[in-house]
Amino acid sequence: MKDVQNQKDDRNVYLQRVGIRNLSYPITVMDKTNGYQDTVAKINMYVDLPEHFRGTHMSRFVEVLNKYRLGIDPKLIRQMLEELRTKLKASTARVEIEFPYFLVKEAPVSGQKSFLSYTCRIEGQKTFEKYDFLVGVGVPILTLCPCSKEISEYGAHNQRAVAWINIRSRKLVWFEELIEYAEQAASAPVYTILKRSDEKYITERAYENPRFVEDVAREIALKLNADERIFWYRVEVESFESIHAHNAYACVTKYKEE
Amino acid sequence: MKDVQNQKDDRNVYLQRVGIRNLSYPITVMDKTNGYQDTVAKINMYVDLPEHFRGTHMSRFVEVLNKYRLGIDPKLIRQMLEELRTKLKASTARVEIEFPYFLVKEAPVSGQKSFLSYTCRIEGQKTFEKYDFLVGVGVPILTLCPCSKEISEYGAHNQRAVAWINIRSRKLVWFEELIEYAEQAASAPVYTILKRSDEKYITERAYENPRFVEDVAREIALKLNADERIFWYRVEVESFESIHAHNAYACVTKYKEE
Amino acid sequence: MKDVQNQKDDRNVYLQRVGIRNLSYPITVMDKTNGYQDTVAKINMYVDLPEHFRGTHMSRFVEVLNKYRLGIDPKLIRQMLEELRTKLKASTARVEIEFPYFLVKEAPVSGQKSFLSYTCRIEGQKTFEKYDFLVGVGVPILTLCPCSKEISEYGAHNQRAVAWINIRSRKLVWFEELIEYAEQAASAPVYTILKRSDEKYITERAYENPRFVEDVAREIALKLNADERIFWYRVEVESFESIHAHNAYACVTKYKEE
Amino acid sequence: MKDVQNQKDDRNVYLQRVGIRNLSYPITVMDKTNGYQDTVAKINMYVDLPEHFRGTHMSRFVEVLNKYRLGIDPKLIRQMLEELRTKLKASTARVEIEFPYFLVKEAPVSGQKSFLSYTCRIEGQKTFEKYDFLVGVGVPILTLCPCSKEISEYGAHNQRAVAWINIRSRKLVWFEELIEYAEQAASAPVYTILKRSDEKYITERAYENPRFVEDVAREIALKLNADERIFWYRVEVESFESIHAHNAYACVTKYKEE
Repeated sequence: MKDVQNQKDDRNVYLQRVGIRNLSYPITVMDKTNGYQDTVAKINMYVDLPEHFRGTHMSRFVEVLNKYRLGIDPKLIRQMLEELRTKLKASTARVEIEFPYFLVKEAPVSGQKSFLSYTCRIEGQKTFEKYDFLVGVGVPILTLCPCSKEISEYGAHNQRAVAWINIRSRKLVWFEELIEYAEQAASAPVYTILKRSDEKYITERAYENPRFVEDVAREIALKLNADERIFWYRVEVESFESIHAHNAYACVTKYKEE
Repeated sequence: MKDVQNQKDDRNVYLQRVGIRNLSYPITVMDKTNGYQDTVAKINMYVDLPEHFRGTHMSRFVEVLNKYRLGIDPKLIRQMLEELRTKLKASTARVEIEFPYFLVKEAPVSGQKSFLSYTCRIEGQKTFEKYDFLVGVGVPILTLCPCSKEISEYGAHNQRAVAWINIRSRKLVWFEELIEYAEQAASAPVYTILKRSDEKYITERAYENPRFVEDVAREIALKLNADERIFWYRVEVESFESIHAHNAYACVTKYKEE
Repeated sequence: MKDVQNQKDDRNVYLQRVGIRNLSYPITVMDKTNGYQDTVAKINMYVDLPEHFRGTHMSRFVEVLNKYRLGIDPKLIRQMLEELRTKLKASTARVEIEFPYFLVKEAPVSGQKSFLSYTCRIEGQKTFEKYDFLVGVGVPILTLCPCSKEISEYGAHNQRAVAWINIRSRKLVWFEELIEYAEQAASAPVYTILKRSDEKYITERAYENPRFVEDVAREIALKLNADERIFWYRVEVESFESIHAHNAYACVTKYKEE
Repeated sequence: MKDVQNQKDDRNVYLQRVGIRNLSYPITVMDKTNGYQDTVAKINMYVDLPEHFRGTHMSRFVEVLNKYRLGIDPKLIRQMLEELRTKLKASTARVEIEFPYFLVKEAPVSGQKSFLSYTCRIEGQKTFEKYDFLVGVGVPILTLCPCSKEISEYGAHNQRAVAWINIRSRKLVWFEELIEYAEQAASAPVYTILKRSDEKYITERAYENPRFVEDVAREIALKLNADERIFWYRVEVESFESIHAHNAYACVTKYKEE
């Protein structure tokens, strides 16, 4: 059967990325407490395509993924990318994996337990010489507006927000550690179950810790600056302002070695 | 050229709805203040398909829409549905139109003007004897939790929420009127521009008017009960809880004639 | 601590549904082949709220869910709803659960195995006398246009589509059975891995089996009509037309006992 | 009233971007045929925030937008960004605007006219010395698989796809021109109304012009290479594969001056 993808291409256009996108797939990731966690990911996989080939072989991406989906960790991702490079005769291979990741949280006063969902991501890219690996978390938090508190007789507007932290590190950093950085930087963390005693605690804690999105971004940045394993980060905080129908946003990116 | 859609079908399955979905189209709707407003809609259009026809003629839906898109009002929607019934040899025709609709809002203290976007919808359905017409609005609002306020020393969690009102009425009810019902029932309305004096006002107003989603739904219901033009309604309120990553919800549906 | 939710309400508005929405939670569902399958669900839970109560107790929904999340089956859902009714002093309890569900599929010629993701849903509602239970699947399929094939010298436009089947039944019907009904009714099923021999097979099979969305809906309806366990169904087919930027749609609902 | 945002910050963290996101706003953009077109945009606006300020003033973004929203063109965007820099005492200002943009298209044989929606975007960023301006279009197209055509006895799988073109140019390039590049590179363009004669034409044209996503990306790249106004581009093509539930993707980025 003819291999149309393998045809010679004379348009002389190098494609940095060709591959598959938005694949929903069951995977197993590392879990600091329990060893591993089953979840459902959205996956993108790419290689580059030299000028002289017409197309890539899309089915091979999933064949390789099938071998590695049960052990998504930094070392195996590297191996998977190397295998993709070989199987697809490419110089660069890249993968992007995003998935819900659950932690059991205890309510601050009642101690009631429930799961909270965090959006985690892993990105890996490999050439012959270089391996780039990025880890990210999206953490739902509560922000209470310092300006609103200061100028108002009583109350202060507050809202759900999300803090995104993406890092590159020399040693393993757990999702759990990044999540903790984000929750400590917030006016308050959020929970799935809160009894009345907990709700009182969270309400008062948030009022005592007013934070702009700018404050949360900076507080997280200070923690990432102090963590010597991390050499690059991007922090984004977006709050679903309760007094507006649009969002407030703050972002800081830093390559620490500079 | 053969008309495959017109082929006789012997599977004996009547289809209640066949048609087109998720069409993005420029339309003009009625505006209480300015006469009309240009916007961009997502449109679904359907007819029913008798047992003995194999398919409907999808291109005719858009041909009919083209004639009416510049005058989306209750009377013309009725005419459009009647034309769909004829052109597609159907007994029932149906249209669903959803679009952003903008009002100029003045900030409560500074008087600063800005646009706020509301999600409006129109649904019409027509058979030989009956014409059903529904109008809906989605209104962003602020809700402040009465329980949190009551049990906490200071502060109270609050958040962005959305109130959905859908109605059937004997006489024209403007989007603007439904929007006002929703905003009055909230702990506070939301705005696109708020200066500090406005932010103080909204923060304090919300603290003085704590409302569960249940309260907002009921307050809106009271207004709709009192409006004699309206004979059916559904009110839904969903708040993006600032202390959780999930939402709180309340819904009431009423056919007033019963 | 004061229980604001328990306050007497004198607005005299009964709320059909109050509760929580869009909760992301880890659950375990029944799997015909393997016994069970871990997945991640979006969950809505509601009760009704009598006129005389001000609010419901949102944290109790998740407390009940925690007890049942590892055994999502028709019998346990019933028990869970009964417990919700009691715990929340409600007459009606309702749950809606939607999740990705994976099956291993073998490519038709090469036999290569890969996972395909289906969107499954379960809805349960319970009052004192009645228990309503609904099962649904969303199945990605391929449709090839019979009109395009008939009128063209060569080729025929085809596209990804999705078939939604929702049923109520007297006996257990597996997701796997509904998925098979949808895939058999399509021009061809879709797969995650297809080698060239498989791609040839699917391309030719689709060309030999041209189907409008109307055809797919009717073919599925015939199968559901013949399945005596099922007493109600709704079939919806929506195709992402390759020649348009909007979708084609067909829907049939039937209560078979009538 | 105290200005909390203006407080001195001693955390020593510079924020590259602070501002507002996901604002829905009515705007007027340039239209090659009709002079201008009203539409509804999603808008993000940012400035940078020096180490020593605690927060930015979010309301000023919308005040500035209000002055420019009726004339979204490259020159006025530049002026708007300069005004943002001054009003917010920032060194960098940035805006991202995305909106549906409609063209009237004539069906290829019947000549029937209808609107087709394209997703357009504008990004501008300004510092004291530099002004960066980017224009983008998202174009729905049809792709027919060359491999499937080659290996199959009859037929070939095809599907809706979208081509994204983003460019930086020395002179004005109209959305209309980029859209034409994308549609010419596809197996066939898509339309909102197609009569049977048109459907035959499009089906056959697509079969005669099989294109991988890789081919479409390269064909567009050749056109952009030849257009001397353009000095940077990114082309992305993503097809909603009819034989899979995931997508195929190709991307090429080029800075032509290198």
